[in-house]
Amino acid sequence: MKVGGLNLIITLTTDFSIHDPYVAAMKGVILNHCPDVTIVDISHSIQPQNVDEAAFILNGVYRYFPKGAIHVVVVDPGVGSDRAVLAVDTSDYLFLAPDNGVLKYIFNDSPKARVFRVINRELFLKNVSNTFHGRDVFAPVSAHLASGHPIESVGESCSDYIQGEIKNSTVEENSISGEIIYIDGFGNGITNINQEQITGRKNIRIRIGDRAIQMLVSSYSEGAIGEILVIIGSFGTLEIAVREGNAQKMLNFQSGDLVQVGWD
Amino acid sequence: MKVGGLNLIITLTTDFSIHDPYVAAMKGVILNHCPDVTIVDISHSIQPQNVDEAAFILNGVYRYFPKGAIHVVVVDPGVGSDRAVLAVDTSDYLFLAPDNGVLKYIFNDSPKARVFRVINRELFLKNVSNTFHGRDVFAPVSAHLASGHPIESVGESCSDYIQGEIKNSTVEENSISGEIIYIDGFGNGITNINQEQITGRKNIRIRIGDRAIQMLVSSYSEGAIGEILVIIGSFGTLEIAVREGNAQKMLNFQSGDLVQVGWD
Amino acid sequence: MKVGGLNLIITLTTDFSIHDPYVAAMKGVILNHCPDVTIVDISHSIQPQNVDEAAFILNGVYRYFPKGAIHVVVVDPGVGSDRAVLAVDTSDYLFLAPDNGVLKYIFNDSPKARVFRVINRELFLKNVSNTFHGRDVFAPVSAHLASGHPIESVGESCSDYIQGEIKNSTVEENSISGEIIYIDGFGNGITNINQEQITGRKNIRIRIGDRAIQMLVSSYSEGAIGEILVIIGSFGTLEIAVREGNAQKMLNFQSGDLVQVGWD
Repeated sequence: MKVGGLNLIITLTTDFSIHDPYVAAMKGVILNHCPDVTIVDISHSIQPQNVDEAAFILNGVYRYFPKGAIHVVVVDPGVGSDRAVLAVDTSDYLFLAPDNGVLKYIFNDSPKARVFRVINRELFLKNVSNTFHGRDVFAPVSAHLASGHPIESVGESCSDYIQGEIKNSTVEENSISGEIIYIDGFGNGITNINQEQITGRKNIRIRIGDRAIQMLVSSYSEGAIGEILVIIGSFGTLEIAVREGNAQKMLNFQSGDLVQVGWD
Repeated sequence: MKVGGLNLIITLTTDFSIHDPYVAAMKGVILNHCPDVTIVDISHSIQPQNVDEAAFILNGVYRYFPKGAIHVVVVDPGVGSDRAVLAVDTSDYLFLAPDNGVLKYIFNDSPKARVFRVINRELFLKNVSNTFHGRDVFAPVSAHLASGHPIESVGESCSDYIQGEIKNSTVEENSISGEIIYIDGFGNGITNINQEQITGRKNIRIRIGDRAIQMLVSSYSEGAIGEILVIIGSFGTLEIAVREGNAQKMLNFQSGDLVQVGWD
Repeated sequence: MKVGGLNLIITLTTDFSIHDPYVAAMKGVILNHCPDVTIVDISHSIQPQNVDEAAFILNGVYRYFPKGAIHVVVVDPGVGSDRAVLAVDTSDYLFLAPDNGVLKYIFNDSPKARVFRVINRELFLKNVSNTFHGRDVFAPVSAHLASGHPIESVGESCSDYIQGEIKNSTVEENSISGEIIYIDGFGNGITNINQEQITGRKNIRIRIGDRAIQMLVSSYSEGAIGEILVIIGSFGTLEIAVREGNAQKMLNFQSGDLVQVGWD
């Protein structure tokens, strides 16, 4: 919804699943505080407490939303401890997340982002549980920000937050070593080897674990149905896929498995 | 969406799953009759025909929505029979549900609620199927109510509806007996033993089935990773959990399993 | 949202699942181009690359949406090949889908529909990937259409598109042969035998595979709990169901299994 020139969009990325009523509770609180907002689910299927996966998912989509959107991430193994909650302004987007490295790609992309620790308890629900800050803290604070209040109102400027560590691929003279960083629902293995890192290379050879994969294709349709292939996927990185099949089931790879690219 | 001072929100709680097009059909009908409404999914993962689970889920979240929201529940084993459809006004919220006890917590919280039997067939779709009243009855009636029509327009006042039975815990001098009432996607076992029932007790001892659990903690971080603990959860009741783990898998409990709390 | 007399609704039907961020990326792009649109998920649980299932699901719900809604289908085994993308105007609705037969029911219902091939690359995202046209092509084009631009602006009129083949049941003098066309989350087997085809028949006998089913009922409650029954379901066709049970698990049928109806 565009109101007074603002696009009021809040996105949600959590490990709550959609089977429980936790996401709905967050939406109820948000709408209670900011009825004109459009709420978009990014994912609620993050593996429980998997901060790295949440970071990757968020990084894959946040840029596609209208400027001004507020991205809320609640993958929060430290809920109820003294871990901080961060509000971050990259000038394009706002982010609200626990201080556990889940914003590592954001900090990397936007080194000049302004970071605040959320401590203004007046913005929280009256009764803050020890187990569900998504509902009691993140939801009302995101609605407060969506209503146009300045980010300074949530708390104090903060510089000692957790940056988080990005697993980059390693480039050598005639090769790159990367890894499977995410496996999607089609069974595609998404790596951290970027398109730019292999552009112009000749006689490219790809290995995942012990297995050589010959086919670097520019679209699925270049492979035969059921054939293993490697493609530049929608994250802009190498993906291991099977045309109209499931690469993960065929090759039995897991997140973290080594992927190597060599050339002449 | 706020229109003319009204917050037009309809929430949906069903056992339709999100894999089939049934929820979408309801949303299409609602938007057809009331284009400005905001529709929020509470859950579509209720176990098929599990009225108790739907009642519990709804009770956990309905209060977090803006006043005036319309909560629609379609967990309806009696669809196509002569079971009634109820419209209920608690003055804070409207509810629309089959007359099967799924609103038991609402009736308990709001004994002065006004209850109507939905019989005005002019509000229904022209062709009412015998298997899908969610689309043919609940959706258009909820849109009618969201459009601002008075609840009286749906039918006739009703007093002989099914109240439903709430499973409360049993309090004795030095102990409480309750049960697992819901297991969430993290594997937490949520009980019907309320925070108030144990506040101030000394030397609390907790048993689930044959197993004693020593740790009553105020946040997950007080336990070690993988440790079984008991916490006051986000429903305001005792929850059996494992820090960064799955209590249901470790302890193999089920809904209905006995939980006992004793003290000195 | 109703804006200037238009109902701005985009529905999404994909095989992306909701676990990955692909649907969210589409929504981000749509909202970026058309902030006032209401986006409704029809299903993201289509079996990967199952064009027939997507066609059936879409056909079951599209009519329930307000006139003017834009239905986007991205079940697209040919992504990255030279398969066309179609924009279709039935005068009631717009459809945007790959040219692979997924709109077969729409073409059948609306033989006068105007069909265009989407070729105006100015409407696409700047960088079009070879694997994710949902985000890079379908999303921005649907937002362009939702913003009120005429369908002609997407490309050129097209007559040589793929119609797709609808599996109809076969009617003989005293019998009909059809098949299971979809199995829903309750385990109901939905057939392609229409209500009209059996109305007025006497002594109806139904067989699925080798098994005879006697009960043709008008509501679930006519059967005993756990009993196999046949009912006219919400798609307007014969459905094989079990009252408060799962017919698919009891009878072990699959999509494509033969269903026969005979009468005197």
